[in-house]
Amino acid sequence: MVCDNLTVGANGHLYFAGLDTIELAKEYGTPTYFMDENKIREKCRIYTKTLKECFGDKALPLYASKAFSIKQMYRILSEEHMGIDVVSPGEIYTACAAGFPMERAFFHGNNKSDEEIVYAMDKQIGYFIVDNFDELAAVQAEAAKRGIVQKVLLRVTPGIDPHTHQKISTGNVDSKFGVAMQTGQALEFAKQALSMDSLSLKGFHCHVGSQLFDIEPLREAGRTMVQFTAQVRDRFGYTAELIDLGGGLGVRYVDSDPEIDLAASIREIADVVKAECAALHLDVPAILMEPGRSIVADAGLTLYTVGSKKEISGIKNYVSIDGGMTDNPRYTLYSSDYTVINAGKMHEKADYVCSVAGKCCESGDLIQEGVHIVTPERGDILAVCTTGAYNYSMSSNYNAIPRPPVVMIRDAKAYVAVERETFDDMICCQK
Amino acid sequence: MVCDNLTVGANGHLYFAGLDTIELAKEYGTPTYFMDENKIREKCRIYTKTLKECFGDKALPLYASKAFSIKQMYRILSEEHMGIDVVSPGEIYTACAAGFPMERAFFHGNNKSDEEIVYAMDKQIGYFIVDNFDELAAVQAEAAKRGIVQKVLLRVTPGIDPHTHQKISTGNVDSKFGVAMQTGQALEFAKQALSMDSLSLKGFHCHVGSQLFDIEPLREAGRTMVQFTAQVRDRFGYTAELIDLGGGLGVRYVDSDPEIDLAASIREIADVVKAECAALHLDVPAILMEPGRSIVADAGLTLYTVGSKKEISGIKNYVSIDGGMTDNPRYTLYSSDYTVINAGKMHEKADYVCSVAGKCCESGDLIQEGVHIVTPERGDILAVCTTGAYNYSMSSNYNAIPRPPVVMIRDAKAYVAVERETFDDMICCQK
Repeated sequence: MVCDNLTVGANGHLYFAGLDTIELAKEYGTPTYFMDENKIREKCRIYTKTLKECFGDKALPLYASKAFSIKQMYRILSEEHMGIDVVSPGEIYTACAAGFPMERAFFHGNNKSDEEIVYAMDKQIGYFIVDNFDELAAVQAEAAKRGIVQKVLLRVTPGIDPHTHQKISTGNVDSKFGVAMQTGQALEFAKQALSMDSLSLKGFHCHVGSQLFDIEPLREAGRTMVQFTAQVRDRFGYTAELIDLGGGLGVRYVDSDPEIDLAASIREIADVVKAECAALHLDVPAILMEPGRSIVADAGLTLYTVGSKKEISGIKNYVSIDGGMTDNPRYTLYSSDYTVINAGKMHEKADYVCSVAGKCCESGDLIQEGVHIVTPERGDILAVCTTGAYNYSMSSNYNAIPRPPVVMIRDAKAYVAVERETFDDMICCQK
Repeated sequence: MVCDNLTVGANGHLYFAGLDTIELAKEYGTPTYFMDENKIREKCRIYTKTLKECFGDKALPLYASKAFSIKQMYRILSEEHMGIDVVSPGEIYTACAAGFPMERAFFHGNNKSDEEIVYAMDKQIGYFIVDNFDELAAVQAEAAKRGIVQKVLLRVTPGIDPHTHQKISTGNVDSKFGVAMQTGQALEFAKQALSMDSLSLKGFHCHVGSQLFDIEPLREAGRTMVQFTAQVRDRFGYTAELIDLGGGLGVRYVDSDPEIDLAASIREIADVVKAECAALHLDVPAILMEPGRSIVADAGLTLYTVGSKKEISGIKNYVSIDGGMTDNPRYTLYSSDYTVINAGKMHEKADYVCSVAGKCCESGDLIQEGVHIVTPERGDILAVCTTGAYNYSMSSNYNAIPRPPVVMIRDAKAYVAVERETFDDMICCQK
């Protein structure tokens, strides 16, 4: 199975987080997102434990809210002593509504407006991760107006450091995010931040990529960020306390994806950071990481009901489900891989090849192509695995389709965390 | 200008539908969708007038709701004597909430569930456009249960007819929609429909493609559908009253797109249909068409405010705005073209080349690349043109960003049709 929270019951049904998916579909209807709370907590603990072991108590994993941002998630994160990365007032609002302690919140974003800066300070956000010079000035101005000292990290793009993989370098320098090291602008960025009396510079942030199975880019990022930190120390006499290496560790979506050992990967990155610090006589900073996908992706599973089936001789079979790009736009957007399972027929052979299509009036509305499943019939329940990240959060009401509910499962007990949207919810802003 | 509802004021501001965009941005904030109601009505009238001139009173354009489905839109369509194509109970609900007469509603969809069939009949939908055999049986069963006779069209895929362009043919046969003519299944589909006593078969539907500037595929579709109708008559003694040719006429997004003369295009298609009917001694059926994009696309304009600007020497300039893929996912999804204008500086030279980036924490969150605009400064208002179709309807709350309001403009007077979503609206289903 693609994830260890999937098992097969004696009745031939797929079990998720200890519960029979066919029963779950009956009770909550389809489509429905299910989230394995135990898996979320397990992943949080791997990150917190390993980072603190390597770098001490100041080290902190920041959950990247954008992957899945709901109130119940923030309650879980709060209990698990996680930090959070938030990217908008909407995420801040949701976290506050759940009582998340905002001193552990880090505010990201390439284009924070003045109103958003005001909003975040009103909510006493812990840290701004400042993306650019405009924002630096705006945050300083607002903090000065309030007579406070605002903690900030600076987002830099390690870009063309010769140690860095070329492909990733290019991606980083040509980015809407952060300030480039390559051009010397990142040093200037640090200099300006240090000169601003209403800002307290705490360190630097970078992000090299997503869904990485090869951790070398993250090791390179660690090395490069330490070098930059040493450069800033040498130039300006300031030593950063924190280095935020962003997110990026990969998650298995299909059997052919490798399995990542999270703790081992974090330790390998730590080794590089520590070795580079030793070489440069730098006090080892506390490391922050920003896991999003790797916390929630395989904690998620979506259940659908099969509707029509279309077999076009010599061309293709289409199996249509009662959801689609509205609840999971990632195949349409990125051709993302997903594992699809006929959840009620686990003892039969998965030898029916088909495209799994959504119900939207849109040709591109597919969930996956070329999947092998047990021959489905109208009414069968299909499970799409690893849908915990960027499914609910990117969902839409296209075709005026209400968004599915989110049902959490804790210790083999299910509870509703987000109710199914009603038509009235959906058009509540329309006059 | 890319559309004739755009003009330039003496003050150097862009005017849309007769109003100063800079004033509109001040009054309603940004990002905001603006919709030109007069343009919508003008387009509706071209379709209704031309179709009725060519095919008599039974001919009817069906607005494809999915392009932009809000209550006020259905009120306008009702007043303009349009039909509508709806693809979900959510669209039916919205149309009913606006008092749209449901006898002019046609229910589309490749995967209508039994519950959805019940829902549509409860709302006394005019027509089902039946997509497949499963649905045919389900609609018959539900109609029989109610003791009613349900009007239906059948969706067929003209596919490999030798007259049809190869590229489009393939696209049509390999489709999750409809029943293929090529395989003989479409004739069987008609036969079954005719045998069902709770169904009244009214005709056939096809859809060949979207955003077409060359109308030849639509002429071919007309010819092929008439041939199929004659074939059904010859085989089963039944003559269809209606042929629905779907949507597809293209809209100008950028200056290099050709301008389509809607009325002339419809007449050209009519000529082909009539000639083919004459050749086959077929009574000319009433033609339905399903314009969505061509009714609303250039009736729309989105205004944004410029935030940060990033100039990466030798690589690229990024201009970030206060919206993005959440309110317009079409560039991220399809690399769609859009015209971007610095709305307050129309008298200056548009010689600044940049990528216009959204504010989402997502590298792919771009609205357009390589645009030429007047050098923007923080606070400038950018207009993105032709955003009336598939922008509001595909919008999401990714990054917990509330959806913008829709402001309609009628006779140079603006009014709110959809209010800006609040944070509470956004998380109302969360526990």
